[in-house]
Amino acid sequence: MAFSPLTNDTFLRACLRQATPYTPLWLMRQAGRYLPEYKATRARAGSFMGLATNVQYATEVTLQPLDRFALDAAILFSDILTVPDAMGLGLSFAEGEGPKLARPLRDEAAVAALRVPDLDQLRYVFDAVTSIRRALQGRVPLIGFSGSPWTLACYMVEGGGSRDDWRGVKSMLYSRPDLMHRILAVNADAVAAYLNAQIDAGAQAVMVFDSWGGALADRAFPEFSLDYTASVLAKLKRNGPDGQVVPRIVFTKGGGLWLQQMERLDCDVLGVDWTVSLAKARALVGSSKALQGNLDPAVLFAPAENVAAEARRVLDDFGAPHQGSGSGPTHIFNLGHGISQFTPPEHVHALVEAVHSHSARMRAA
Amino acid sequence: MAFSPLTNDTFLRACLRQATPYTPLWLMRQAGRYLPEYKATRARAGSFMGLATNVQYATEVTLQPLDRFALDAAILFSDILTVPDAMGLGLSFAEGEGPKLARPLRDEAAVAALRVPDLDQLRYVFDAVTSIRRALQGRVPLIGFSGSPWTLACYMVEGGGSRDDWRGVKSMLYSRPDLMHRILAVNADAVAAYLNAQIDAGAQAVMVFDSWGGALADRAFPEFSLDYTASVLAKLKRNGPDGQVVPRIVFTKGGGLWLQQMERLDCDVLGVDWTVSLAKARALVGSSKALQGNLDPAVLFAPAENVAAEARRVLDDFGAPHQGSGSGPTHIFNLGHGISQFTPPEHVHALVEAVHSHSARMRAA
Repeated sequence: MAFSPLTNDTFLRACLRQATPYTPLWLMRQAGRYLPEYKATRARAGSFMGLATNVQYATEVTLQPLDRFALDAAILFSDILTVPDAMGLGLSFAEGEGPKLARPLRDEAAVAALRVPDLDQLRYVFDAVTSIRRALQGRVPLIGFSGSPWTLACYMVEGGGSRDDWRGVKSMLYSRPDLMHRILAVNADAVAAYLNAQIDAGAQAVMVFDSWGGALADRAFPEFSLDYTASVLAKLKRNGPDGQVVPRIVFTKGGGLWLQQMERLDCDVLGVDWTVSLAKARALVGSSKALQGNLDPAVLFAPAENVAAEARRVLDDFGAPHQGSGSGPTHIFNLGHGISQFTPPEHVHALVEAVHSHSARMRAA
Repeated sequence: MAFSPLTNDTFLRACLRQATPYTPLWLMRQAGRYLPEYKATRARAGSFMGLATNVQYATEVTLQPLDRFALDAAILFSDILTVPDAMGLGLSFAEGEGPKLARPLRDEAAVAALRVPDLDQLRYVFDAVTSIRRALQGRVPLIGFSGSPWTLACYMVEGGGSRDDWRGVKSMLYSRPDLMHRILAVNADAVAAYLNAQIDAGAQAVMVFDSWGGALADRAFPEFSLDYTASVLAKLKRNGPDGQVVPRIVFTKGGGLWLQQMERLDCDVLGVDWTVSLAKARALVGSSKALQGNLDPAVLFAPAENVAAEARRVLDDFGAPHQGSGSGPTHIFNLGHGISQFTPPEHVHALVEAVHSHSARMRAA
């Protein structure tokens, strides 16, 4: 398997805390419903899973935002719940609603029966990774991803999203921590195998989305989220099939209070949401990790000039970029959460232009 | 107006950072749907607003949890949206859904027309305060409350709760900050007048619920939430009609990252949610503020012995209580958010018993 050499390696360099001529930028959920061309492909696919499981469609939608915007990375189009689905929990998406799992883990027998899935069940994901990597022709690097063991467990116990602060999963956590730990241990093995297979298939960086880590109590976060993310990282390959280092990104939404604990993770980049000051985060972790984030996605509802002003504020908050040789504190611009389906695409243009031009100016200054 | 002297002043003493023989405890939303007697009164009242606007019903439900549990404070039974309702926005509660405002602030004209409400519109609240204070006969102190200017604005612009990260109110914030500031300035005046009238009616402490402050970006929080809470505090009376100091509590859910900024507020107590370490919070603000919180409400779904163990962990996390004369770091035990309607009442018994006995033992040690 030989892929084209990279034309734009700013994202990978920034992940590894190397200097870049400007701050690289990508957007969580950049291939999504705010793009009319995405909606058109999704309509042809018939359903979300029809889209995600079809290699050609997944490739097509992954590349769509890159054709519109000068983004510095691509991210695999998929869903974090492919893993529970492969475990036999039965994933579906009803129109206008969130994900549903038909067979959530509601009792001890279901937890005992849980197994790391056969990776053949997830072949469509790895095939999509390879197909996308080829289609990219080296334009920008491709990011693979997974949900964190804890975040997957939230959906696996609850059977979907939660409108009451994850009552089901937290009931299990506080009543039967032994069952919770068993789920998390299986998930950690599954996530590591899943990400390693994405790396083998051509993913050039991997990201762990701990979307619901921030729902945990201070005393519960290390035990039920962080330790299992650490266990995933310990099992991950360092290099891709081409020998290149594969940077690891960990993002705990709502985890700003725990950055000092997260700083000890064996990863290269920490993602932060919009409640965090990048200047403070840099002071805490800047010497050992790159930071990714953290514009409030709601900024993109505002007029273009306000978008540009807020983007500059995020860059200025991070502060003077690392320049020259060796490694130093670096920033990867992103939103603090996935882009909203209600975002006007032309506002994304304003964002990309502001980030690239202002961050280049910061280096010239 | 002469009220009975207080039998149990542990809560007020702890608010003012004075030593108490044990850690006082109350629960946000302690009068609520998890209690069958509450449901019975609500059924008689016909609707939530029928309950909240009737002085006798409001008094009855406020006292219900005190008859069951050895709680150290009562809190006025009401809703934060009484203020927008009095402003003419038209509050209603549909069964099984959240609050709705019939006339949200959707355009410049609506914002321009917004006024501090005539406090006569809220007479039912102040009458309830006086009635509850009398009915308490000095058993425990009565807490009055209001939503923060920002939190009220969230509902006033959105027209209710939000399932998409407060898209409406954040669009206004980033697109038309001038309109947002006008709403917040009116709200700050209204909230101050509302709380002062509660103090005049007999409230012995007041709490500002900034329930949605944590939805704001780091750069937006001081400008759109904190500054207006500070403006409310600056206008509040220091003393009740009996001459007693009226402590002020400020709780920003999700505001753990901003405790150092909140430490500068002119209030006595800072509430914190379950994502915060009380030990770290104490290190940050312990010398100037009491701390209130922060058990994860989901703990109460677990068996009684687990509830007791988690309660002890919260107390131990805060650490050695202040003893002797003078002022020092104090802790008021609470949940990190309102108690869930699905809580078994007998688990609250286990919680109260564990908090009182363990915290008394910590003082004897």
